[in-house]
Amino acid sequence: MTFHQVEHPLLVIPGPIEVSDDVLFANASPSQSHMSKSFTETFGNTIRMFRQVLVTERGQPIITAGSGTLGWDMIASNLTEPGDDVLVLNSGYFGQSFSDCLEAYGAKVTHLKAPIGQFPSREQLAEALKLKKYKMVTVTHVDTSTGVLSNPQMVSEVVRQVSPDTLVIVDGVCSVGSEEIRMDEWSLDVVMCASQKGLGVPPGLCLVCVSERAIHLVETRKTKISAYFASWLNWLPVMRGYEQGKPVYFATPPIQLICALYTSLKAITSRPIEERWSKHKEASLDFKQFVTNELGLKQVPNDPSVAANSMTAIYFPDGVSAPDVIPKLFEHGIIVAGGLHKEIKDKYFRIGHMGITAIDTTRHELEKVKDTLRNIFTAIGHAAKTTD
Amino acid sequence: MTFHQVEHPLLVIPGPIEVSDDVLFANASPSQSHMSKSFTETFGNTIRMFRQVLVTERGQPIITAGSGTLGWDMIASNLTEPGDDVLVLNSGYFGQSFSDCLEAYGAKVTHLKAPIGQFPSREQLAEALKLKKYKMVTVTHVDTSTGVLSNPQMVSEVVRQVSPDTLVIVDGVCSVGSEEIRMDEWSLDVVMCASQKGLGVPPGLCLVCVSERAIHLVETRKTKISAYFASWLNWLPVMRGYEQGKPVYFATPPIQLICALYTSLKAITSRPIEERWSKHKEASLDFKQFVTNELGLKQVPNDPSVAANSMTAIYFPDGVSAPDVIPKLFEHGIIVAGGLHKEIKDKYFRIGHMGITAIDTTRHELEKVKDTLRNIFTAIGHAAKTTD
Repeated sequence: MTFHQVEHPLLVIPGPIEVSDDVLFANASPSQSHMSKSFTETFGNTIRMFRQVLVTERGQPIITAGSGTLGWDMIASNLTEPGDDVLVLNSGYFGQSFSDCLEAYGAKVTHLKAPIGQFPSREQLAEALKLKKYKMVTVTHVDTSTGVLSNPQMVSEVVRQVSPDTLVIVDGVCSVGSEEIRMDEWSLDVVMCASQKGLGVPPGLCLVCVSERAIHLVETRKTKISAYFASWLNWLPVMRGYEQGKPVYFATPPIQLICALYTSLKAITSRPIEERWSKHKEASLDFKQFVTNELGLKQVPNDPSVAANSMTAIYFPDGVSAPDVIPKLFEHGIIVAGGLHKEIKDKYFRIGHMGITAIDTTRHELEKVKDTLRNIFTAIGHAAKTTD
Repeated sequence: MTFHQVEHPLLVIPGPIEVSDDVLFANASPSQSHMSKSFTETFGNTIRMFRQVLVTERGQPIITAGSGTLGWDMIASNLTEPGDDVLVLNSGYFGQSFSDCLEAYGAKVTHLKAPIGQFPSREQLAEALKLKKYKMVTVTHVDTSTGVLSNPQMVSEVVRQVSPDTLVIVDGVCSVGSEEIRMDEWSLDVVMCASQKGLGVPPGLCLVCVSERAIHLVETRKTKISAYFASWLNWLPVMRGYEQGKPVYFATPPIQLICALYTSLKAITSRPIEERWSKHKEASLDFKQFVTNELGLKQVPNDPSVAANSMTAIYFPDGVSAPDVIPKLFEHGIIVAGGLHKEIKDKYFRIGHMGITAIDTTRHELEKVKDTLRNIFTAIGHAAKTTD
């Protein structure tokens, strides 16, 4: 049987994203035992391929049912002990929520907050690191609320220079699979994400990858981990077991979602990962040029160097608001997202361009979005600029 | 398109279980926004139908990505404060693991442990409750490691009599959807389960249902909840929002799995829930009679009154072990589970009979299992008894 997914409106929010028929068909795999040879092989290969996506040889993937939010719990509960200082590089809604999670586990959070649309500079970070000894620095690679792209490589360079033992934690929820990440080369300690964005899988998985240094820290911490499902000490034997072909039980894995992830990672790793990053960059650049040149609209990130390649956050022009645009896109079968950052919530909207929507240009999905936006803005009197 | 799942061996372990084509097809639903009208309606109805399965009007369902194990974290982190005493009625592996989880959050656990194959008596429970004031009593409804069926109604009666404020927590991972549970009538405070057993959905969901008393306790606790993803304070507004048709964001829900659960619950609630319990009971009784009368084998539960209706745990006869039976079943396209309880691990095997395998007799799945077992035991020299 050739499986084709049901016809549906085009989903171009910054996650969940459109997924391929192959991936959805894998999500409809028949029941199988979590201890079976076939599932063990699938899970083992999934773990190995996830390493390739992060360009790491030494990182330990941990893949469980959950979401990106659970990834924060894992980081907070395993890597901080009550009273530990954490520096959160805050570029939007998700930096704030990560911080709430860290505080739930007793960490003391200091924010290094950039104005909306910006990211803290190398100098600001170096200065902050000199003032206090931090257990970890967290960076939201792409803050889905603002579309601001941070620079984990720069963050890690500064940390290794000023405070070499401090862990570098990357929230890659809206970047893994779409933005350049080199876990080993950049000396990152944790990269975490979820399944429903750049990895092109339905939501329901939490994925983290942990450095040797971070694992050593978990294994030698003074206080007990005050969590059970989130404790990496419970998951490490499971992940190592599946990778070695010997299933270990802790909690029943989300079998069909792992099969879906396996299918997506097979497609992703069939080509060099650099090519995937470039394709996302090209699609993003093209879309952003359209927004600037044809719609004449401003983006939330205040400079192209801090604008994500996975999504675009666009300010409405004066006198226009969400109800003028979003329902009209919906009438044309296109679903985008409204604002999320509370300070500017009603002033902008967000479009995701990740996975097959970005890289498979034969689907013409972003063309359709551009054409429809052009028509809508022309019709409501914001005449499109011509590019010549 | 009519969807048919791929041909595969018959899975009769005590979860994951066989799921219907409709449910798997729903698990392959196309991407949709978690904030959309259509998904909000699906999620809201799913929450309402889950209440029906537990025969509760006042219980508050919380449905998230995860597994049964995460349900333990939710109970431990929300309902206990460090130092609180908890009484664990321990009838196997899962009572022990639940206890490990409670201790991770600082609870002090007392075990009321029955010998393998048994469940603590009314008198033992009453006595234990008189010795110490417990914050909660936990009971594993069906311990998947032993197939022992406990009696949450009796537990609750004794608790309400001897220590009325103590919470009654039911781990219903291997019972919800297959065993009788009446949350309101029995005065249960939490019933928790996962998706891959009696509810007939792929694994990947954690489902809990919380009484008004338990919610009041969470909202008035003295210490902060030391968890974020597991904190019900974060999920309550989300669940209430979706049920009222107004989506609220905390973490991206596992959309496709919720669609699958919706589809399964629609089928389950299309008939009186009592009928579903009876059908599981009939299937179980028939299978257990076959084990006793035709195979002449002993079960792990030492009396029919403490034997689950969702599964059967069977001791091998003397001189026979797992490698004599399990691979032969596999050759005939049948997958069963080995032992799990460490004290008797190699001495028994387990067969699940939940969901469509138990209630849709036109599938003839349990007939196939019985025929194959009969042939295998005859061939290895354990001649089947005749029933006359």
